[in-house]
Amino acid sequence: MVDPKRVLVNLEELRKLTGDELGAQRLAWSPVWLKAREWFAEKLKPLPVEHHLDAAGNRWVTLQGESDKALVVGSHLDSVPNGGWLDGCLGVLAGLEVLTDFAERYNGRPPVTVKLVDWADEEGARFGRSLFGSAAFASKHTIAADRGRTDKDGVTLEVALARCGVDIEGVGEAAAEGKNLAAYLELHIEQGPILERLEKPLGVVQGTKGVERWAITFRGQEAHSGSTPMEARRDALAAAAKLALEIRPIARKHPQAVATMGSVKTFPGIVTAVVGRCEATLDMRDLDAGVLAAMMAEARAASERFSQEEGCTVEWEKIWSIEPIPFHEELIALCEEAIAETAGVVERLPSGPLHDAAEVARLGVPTVMMFVQSLNGLSHNRAEDTRREHLELAVTAFGALAEKTAKWIAAA
Amino acid sequence: MVDPKRVLVNLEELRKLTGDELGAQRLAWSPVWLKAREWFAEKLKPLPVEHHLDAAGNRWVTLQGESDKALVVGSHLDSVPNGGWLDGCLGVLAGLEVLTDFAERYNGRPPVTVKLVDWADEEGARFGRSLFGSAAFASKHTIAADRGRTDKDGVTLEVALARCGVDIEGVGEAAAEGKNLAAYLELHIEQGPILERLEKPLGVVQGTKGVERWAITFRGQEAHSGSTPMEARRDALAAAAKLALEIRPIARKHPQAVATMGSVKTFPGIVTAVVGRCEATLDMRDLDAGVLAAMMAEARAASERFSQEEGCTVEWEKIWSIEPIPFHEELIALCEEAIAETAGVVERLPSGPLHDAAEVARLGVPTVMMFVQSLNGLSHNRAEDTRREHLELAVTAFGALAEKTAKWIAAA
Repeated sequence: MVDPKRVLVNLEELRKLTGDELGAQRLAWSPVWLKAREWFAEKLKPLPVEHHLDAAGNRWVTLQGESDKALVVGSHLDSVPNGGWLDGCLGVLAGLEVLTDFAERYNGRPPVTVKLVDWADEEGARFGRSLFGSAAFASKHTIAADRGRTDKDGVTLEVALARCGVDIEGVGEAAAEGKNLAAYLELHIEQGPILERLEKPLGVVQGTKGVERWAITFRGQEAHSGSTPMEARRDALAAAAKLALEIRPIARKHPQAVATMGSVKTFPGIVTAVVGRCEATLDMRDLDAGVLAAMMAEARAASERFSQEEGCTVEWEKIWSIEPIPFHEELIALCEEAIAETAGVVERLPSGPLHDAAEVARLGVPTVMMFVQSLNGLSHNRAEDTRREHLELAVTAFGALAEKTAKWIAAA
Repeated sequence: MVDPKRVLVNLEELRKLTGDELGAQRLAWSPVWLKAREWFAEKLKPLPVEHHLDAAGNRWVTLQGESDKALVVGSHLDSVPNGGWLDGCLGVLAGLEVLTDFAERYNGRPPVTVKLVDWADEEGARFGRSLFGSAAFASKHTIAADRGRTDKDGVTLEVALARCGVDIEGVGEAAAEGKNLAAYLELHIEQGPILERLEKPLGVVQGTKGVERWAITFRGQEAHSGSTPMEARRDALAAAAKLALEIRPIARKHPQAVATMGSVKTFPGIVTAVVGRCEATLDMRDLDAGVLAAMMAEARAASERFSQEEGCTVEWEKIWSIEPIPFHEELIALCEEAIAETAGVVERLPSGPLHDAAEVARLGVPTVMMFVQSLNGLSHNRAEDTRREHLELAVTAFGALAEKTAKWIAAA
């Protein structure tokens, strides 16, 4: 049986080692992150496991089983700056407990191989490239774009990687780790308010939502705020404001969809001028590709209607998009069982945020995630927290899921 | 009679001397502005006038008359960066023509004294303090605030003034120029589209609108764009967007009112976060103080309603305000006569933009302004323009107004 208390002790130890009064500081490719990874490697010493870093900086820990077919558990030790104490490292340390439990219960030789992976740079907080390590593993790396990335101090991603022993040219070789992987499981905090609102400690994640991320520019006519009558204006902000409000009913037609205008910039952006140009961003997400496409079409049509009403023009430029990635139906069912047996209640929900699990699932490895409730829906923030009893339930349920999945693999 | 062609020649000469391919560059307290003023001083040499700079850097040119009671004409030579070729300097050069005409017609000794003033730093483009010279003249200067002003290169206003021989401590002494002033006339381009829409070349200005200028901050809750359901959001941008749209019907209730949200800033302002804080500016104007107060009350109430609807808070902080300043009824009538006689048609309109004339009127000097049509309502831009025939009509009508006003002063 997994021991949730050991996981909590480890989480607290890591918090003390790599956090400060502003929160967790395990920024990927930084000295604090390396310290966290060294600390983690120390924790592996008593276990009968092999471990190494792959070509993209992901750490793979292997407990060899009777079969080479491998159950993989994992998450990431890196955090955003001033981050929370659970985001990512909960999954790694719960994974460590699963590995320990398998090693103990099967005297170091479980029926299937069990692996733990600590993905490198899930957050992308320093170079703007999230899912770095898992994307490389899934052969979705983007060397051309990555070579141009710099942090706020002008350090290139290439140099930062080299300092950690990773050659940017070779990161794709991480794909070699994909051999014999039979299932991937990840425990993560929800980072949203849904489970708390439903008063449920745990949920099974159906998949990660597809994301459409766009830059939208409205162009009207800059004009003097004092001398330009209301009816003579071509106000780019008015068109953007209408869209900021319209994306909400567009999203609300679908129970799990979200749409966000996160940034608005006005030009010339002074108190005495009607806005001539307004740049906005739009982020829309849903688990269903058809729903997402419909939302996009509606938002686009609305932006064109509003531009016309305001005598403006509108342009859309894609920032980034990813398709919805549904998790594996049989693993979803096993996860539901494990949660129901542990917590008595269960909820199915999609993940709005992306996770390394999405990259693994894209590769075709059967995948599922388990969410544990977050307090007040907060994350990426030192206020991020989860009740101790919910963390314990989560580790217990995750241990049960790992055992069920190992049996599922063995039976396949 | 005034000779409009001479004014056009001078305007073109000044444009060549102090403009470039981006427009006029007579930024106050800059070398180019000083060059424009030197050029102007050269133009005064053939005239039987005394001239000097006052304590705030305004240039006063005096054609002494039989009576000390003075008719004053004026405007400003300074421009915004990349400005238009007419804003301000049209009034100064038309004033020069009026002065020349009085000197010629009355053999250097008109019945009343005629003065021309070139106000210093009307635009406030460099230090954010418009009407600098005329406010000092009207004892509305603000030394405490002015001492803290810097331009974008970190040069303080105090240093920039000192380089032009102006001591910031003494600017209030410009008030001494107010003695014996009996009327103030200013010709300016409209800088808006009203006269062009009405197909009228010239208009008499009823006064300058009162202005209420505010910074409005909406505070909601920053949240993850992927994990936060629509119904759980406290989106500060949504509250601001509602206000951006609501100020328009509030202004449209009143025929001459305007309301502008010129700047919106979002925080954290990233594509993946619901806006936690939104800072907006509001600029409202009307010629009627009661209308302006009603608009303010409505906008404020609306902002509070929208904040409540969106689970946000709102704070208003005043940036600046000025009351409506009506011009002198008898001078308005004389201006109307002069325009009707010259152009055949006349229009009364308020000025949305502020002008030095407002400061002079605040001091109690009978004041009126004449507007000449702007093409496409554009100003503060190298595209600023006015038809040559309209400029000529304007100078002729302004000359007629000056003569009528001189007689009105003499008869008083």
